[in-house]
Amino acid sequence: MLSFELALARAEAEAELIPTDAADRIAMAGATFRPDQTQLRHATLKDGVVGPEFVRQLRAHIGDPAARHVHFGATSQDVIDTALAIRLRLIFNLFEGRLASIVSALDTLMTSHGANALMGRTRMQAAIPITVADRLAVWRGLVARALDDLQTVRQRNLIVSLAGAAGSAEKFGDRIDAVRDTLAGLLGLSVPSYVPHAARDRIAVLGGWLGQVTGALGKIGMDIALMAQNEIGEIVMQGGGGSSAMAHKHNPVRAEVLVTLARFNAVQVAGLHQALVHEQERSGAAWTLEWMILPQMLNATGTALLHAKSLLDSIDGIGQPGPMPAA
Amino acid sequence: MLSFELALARAEAEAELIPTDAADRIAMAGATFRPDQTQLRHATLKDGVVGPEFVRQLRAHIGDPAARHVHFGATSQDVIDTALAIRLRLIFNLFEGRLASIVSALDTLMTSHGANALMGRTRMQAAIPITVADRLAVWRGLVARALDDLQTVRQRNLIVSLAGAAGSAEKFGDRIDAVRDTLAGLLGLSVPSYVPHAARDRIAVLGGWLGQVTGALGKIGMDIALMAQNEIGEIVMQGGGGSSAMAHKHNPVRAEVLVTLARFNAVQVAGLHQALVHEQERSGAAWTLEWMILPQMLNATGTALLHAKSLLDSIDGIGQPGPMPAA
Amino acid sequence: MLSFELALARAEAEAELIPTDAADRIAMAGATFRPDQTQLRHATLKDGVVGPEFVRQLRAHIGDPAARHVHFGATSQDVIDTALAIRLRLIFNLFEGRLASIVSALDTLMTSHGANALMGRTRMQAAIPITVADRLAVWRGLVARALDDLQTVRQRNLIVSLAGAAGSAEKFGDRIDAVRDTLAGLLGLSVPSYVPHAARDRIAVLGGWLGQVTGALGKIGMDIALMAQNEIGEIVMQGGGGSSAMAHKHNPVRAEVLVTLARFNAVQVAGLHQALVHEQERSGAAWTLEWMILPQMLNATGTALLHAKSLLDSIDGIGQPGPMPAA
Amino acid sequence: MLSFELALARAEAEAELIPTDAADRIAMAGATFRPDQTQLRHATLKDGVVGPEFVRQLRAHIGDPAARHVHFGATSQDVIDTALAIRLRLIFNLFEGRLASIVSALDTLMTSHGANALMGRTRMQAAIPITVADRLAVWRGLVARALDDLQTVRQRNLIVSLAGAAGSAEKFGDRIDAVRDTLAGLLGLSVPSYVPHAARDRIAVLGGWLGQVTGALGKIGMDIALMAQNEIGEIVMQGGGGSSAMAHKHNPVRAEVLVTLARFNAVQVAGLHQALVHEQERSGAAWTLEWMILPQMLNATGTALLHAKSLLDSIDGIGQPGPMPAA
Repeated sequence: MLSFELALARAEAEAELIPTDAADRIAMAGATFRPDQTQLRHATLKDGVVGPEFVRQLRAHIGDPAARHVHFGATSQDVIDTALAIRLRLIFNLFEGRLASIVSALDTLMTSHGANALMGRTRMQAAIPITVADRLAVWRGLVARALDDLQTVRQRNLIVSLAGAAGSAEKFGDRIDAVRDTLAGLLGLSVPSYVPHAARDRIAVLGGWLGQVTGALGKIGMDIALMAQNEIGEIVMQGGGGSSAMAHKHNPVRAEVLVTLARFNAVQVAGLHQALVHEQERSGAAWTLEWMILPQMLNATGTALLHAKSLLDSIDGIGQPGPMPAA
Repeated sequence: MLSFELALARAEAEAELIPTDAADRIAMAGATFRPDQTQLRHATLKDGVVGPEFVRQLRAHIGDPAARHVHFGATSQDVIDTALAIRLRLIFNLFEGRLASIVSALDTLMTSHGANALMGRTRMQAAIPITVADRLAVWRGLVARALDDLQTVRQRNLIVSLAGAAGSAEKFGDRIDAVRDTLAGLLGLSVPSYVPHAARDRIAVLGGWLGQVTGALGKIGMDIALMAQNEIGEIVMQGGGGSSAMAHKHNPVRAEVLVTLARFNAVQVAGLHQALVHEQERSGAAWTLEWMILPQMLNATGTALLHAKSLLDSIDGIGQPGPMPAA
Repeated sequence: MLSFELALARAEAEAELIPTDAADRIAMAGATFRPDQTQLRHATLKDGVVGPEFVRQLRAHIGDPAARHVHFGATSQDVIDTALAIRLRLIFNLFEGRLASIVSALDTLMTSHGANALMGRTRMQAAIPITVADRLAVWRGLVARALDDLQTVRQRNLIVSLAGAAGSAEKFGDRIDAVRDTLAGLLGLSVPSYVPHAARDRIAVLGGWLGQVTGALGKIGMDIALMAQNEIGEIVMQGGGGSSAMAHKHNPVRAEVLVTLARFNAVQVAGLHQALVHEQERSGAAWTLEWMILPQMLNATGTALLHAKSLLDSIDGIGQPGPMPAA
Repeated sequence: MLSFELALARAEAEAELIPTDAADRIAMAGATFRPDQTQLRHATLKDGVVGPEFVRQLRAHIGDPAARHVHFGATSQDVIDTALAIRLRLIFNLFEGRLASIVSALDTLMTSHGANALMGRTRMQAAIPITVADRLAVWRGLVARALDDLQTVRQRNLIVSLAGAAGSAEKFGDRIDAVRDTLAGLLGLSVPSYVPHAARDRIAVLGGWLGQVTGALGKIGMDIALMAQNEIGEIVMQGGGGSSAMAHKHNPVRAEVLVTLARFNAVQVAGLHQALVHEQERSGAAWTLEWMILPQMLNATGTALLHAKSLLDSIDGIGQPGPMPAA
């Protein structure tokens, strides 16, 4: 949020909407701003949004006369939605790396174990023999497509929001394009072709993608949990969770947790779609629903990516070496 | 399903996997095939899938000796998933036209009423005056982006499925690519780069898009229902629903139904994400869940598109003509 | 709906709100009323509710002068919500019988196979040996509690709705209690202590119970599908579904479908909870959402109950006869 | 969890399953036990459950020879599920008080404003005049029924879990009933008639009730947000949230948040129903899903109850004093 306010002041100074020395002062003083979190929390309870108190504190910190130029023309939604985009940029980079590492881990397994025989199973019954490579290819495809699809999600979400009180950017006149361009450039975001306040499709698209990622990993987890059943024994893994009652157990915990996280995100995506019904120029109710759900989906996805990598790395064997059994 | 089986025989004959005269016979006799729906229903109850009985009936209809070449190398999932793609092609064309007509209707409203003044509203409270164009632009953007996004969904879903019992196309040898290419060409579909049986991401992506469409229309419906409140009176529409108890009422039925359909699809999308956890080479449980949910989402979306167009066409006035009121 | 209107006229005649000969005429002529379904459908599209057209047709069928006494003081929601209760009474009886038959089937299995040994499994891994009775007891408890809980759901939902245009029963004066009592008596329903129009908790409670039923059966289905895996072989069943590609397969179709129906209802219950946000005296949007979801949940539950009974009846063996294996 | 382990040792000593001096030592030393949270976290990541590490630390703290009597016959699920019940007892008491305070606040409003006139509204359109009491009665009924229903949820959930590794209480022999009775008595819980490990219906029932509570409050919130619209002006409240861009605004933040929390819980309840499909004697995947969802639903419900009370207390006026307007 601070990055947004400082960049906004800079962009507005360049467009001669606020004095340059005000922007300088905001940049310099802003660098040392640390909000009072307790006050933010109390004010959010009252205002339903952290924006007003954040701006109040920042203005107090900046001091007159520059203070009144802070947040010029912007509204709480501008700062909060843009702050989300700033954080998403980092998160997307993180997830991209993790997805790529999982693809690599699958490629490694493909090389080391792909030629092994595996019983193909449909409707939970043995069907015909396949190779480990056949199953790994399905896993890899799901993850690789999720990685590809990240590009669309990234473009869609890494946007600057600047549209003022009710989306009409009423304080900017004909300088709005210039300010948005500069602001986006400073923050490493792009300028959307639309007013993003009440158009939340990008959030639903993001939620769908997160569900796609955890769904892919949940399928892998389910397959591994089934392969790891004692009588099936199609996979050998290091580690495994212990039990307080049964010392002999090696539970496929990470595999199970991947299923959990997939089902969790599958539940949550419905909430982001409910939030598409975003009335008028800003819906407090729908927007707050996004806040309750999106961070959790991001956390669940990040965790699933870590678990999936660890799980795949722990595999010592899949399927049976040697010639394919007869059908 | 019949289209798939006939095209499959043709493609397999071209690849010299089955005799050409068998493909000819299948094409000729197949043209008059009408399955016994009651038998299909009973067998589906038993088999959990319509494929085996459909193939049995078709073979009986074709007669020996061509019968045994019907469905060669394919499995129920090949025919059912491809049949879905064939129907989706038509549905996507239909939806594309409806989405475009809604964009046009919004453009018409923009021309006729865009310059009118409207109170901008945030958190259900009057904020600052905007123009009708400001709000219409949000509506239009949501619908236009859904229309754009259809291209991705289309490419993703209009694919042929041909991979045999457990996804390894074990009966085709090195001719699998040729058969898939011919089959896809005959059906107007493309060949995916992956085995689609157990990789259901395209279905979740489709569900997300359907939710995006109805979410966009639900936002429009909610806005209109709010504008149509008696004391607000920001919109004038023809028609409106009657009441069994109150003859004076003109209920904004279509606006409300758009909200309903948005919330309905928002609920359902969770089911398609649950179905991503698709174990092994084919999950009866997850696949059946798709069957219960996807058709309904398509129906809800088609209905919402019709309602939205009718609703927008019924608008006689929005906002207030004349100069913008002072803030 | 017809039952409601006829009983309402009778109850209103007894309370001297409408002439007795009008009620007689309504009862006599009403007995032969068959609505024009096409007209109902068209009018529902326009009015958003079937009530006004239904009443119009019924009045036309009754003829003057009794026609104007049809539906006196009632609103569409009264007739539709009460009609739901009338149908639910039959459905609850049906489900009660099916639940009881499943409990019986489990008791039979307990007697015949309960003493057999079974490997207890936690986190998809063999844990310690248990008896078949241990697992059957969990299944039976879930179903038996669902059967017990039906009583609460029944009392909650088998209520008459009669409250007029906006819930204040404004046309009835001090005779409302008498009319409601008579109406409820005629229809075999009870009189709620509250105005049910905008209070939809009973519907969410019903949805929760339906999910509880299918969840119980889904757990049984999942357990059976896992027991039926080839290498595990802990259960022997008759029947099983065929495959179009693999003649040797006997797929545990009903077990899988129980999982599907559990996950389906789990998804849907969210929709009935969304519909709790039922604004003002009647929400077109929330009420319509109930209509789209509740019938499907009832269908899914009825189907699951049938499948579960068939599945349990098809079991020829569970677990291993003889003494428990050593841990 | 500590309460469970100490009470278990006491109950087992009374049943002569462990030495009395071991139980004494466990009670005395246990009173000063503070687990190493970092270690708990790391071990939970590995084991998928906090139980084993918690028991290990507790045993180390107790010291030999009593240590080996800690957790005798129990499994992680016993301690974790019982610990949930212990916490739920406090939470239910808290929620009971809050629900009662909301009923009181509604009674107060009924007395002070119930006689005022209010426009009844159906399908978002003015219908016929009602009284404020008519609407308040719907609100009160929803909350009062949720309060009544708490008794069922309480009985269902405040149970002790003690069934050992795979639900068969294999270490307790014929003393299991005695131990369960004593344990339940010490913890203020009851003994269920079934093995609760894999039977999760009580959790789904709890989730449904939480959704019922927030759904009731969400309906109130939605009604208030609609009444507070500027042109409608049917409600006067103190407070209201500020805006960073518009100093004149008084946003009905708490009303909106009630809608948010209702929609949030409506989404989540689906997750608890998914978790009903709890395979075999313990499902790591389904159980973990409960852990991710139930605490949030409890938090959302507690918050909604606080907001609802504050919101109702802030009401200075509803409806119009004086005689009812003509219809």
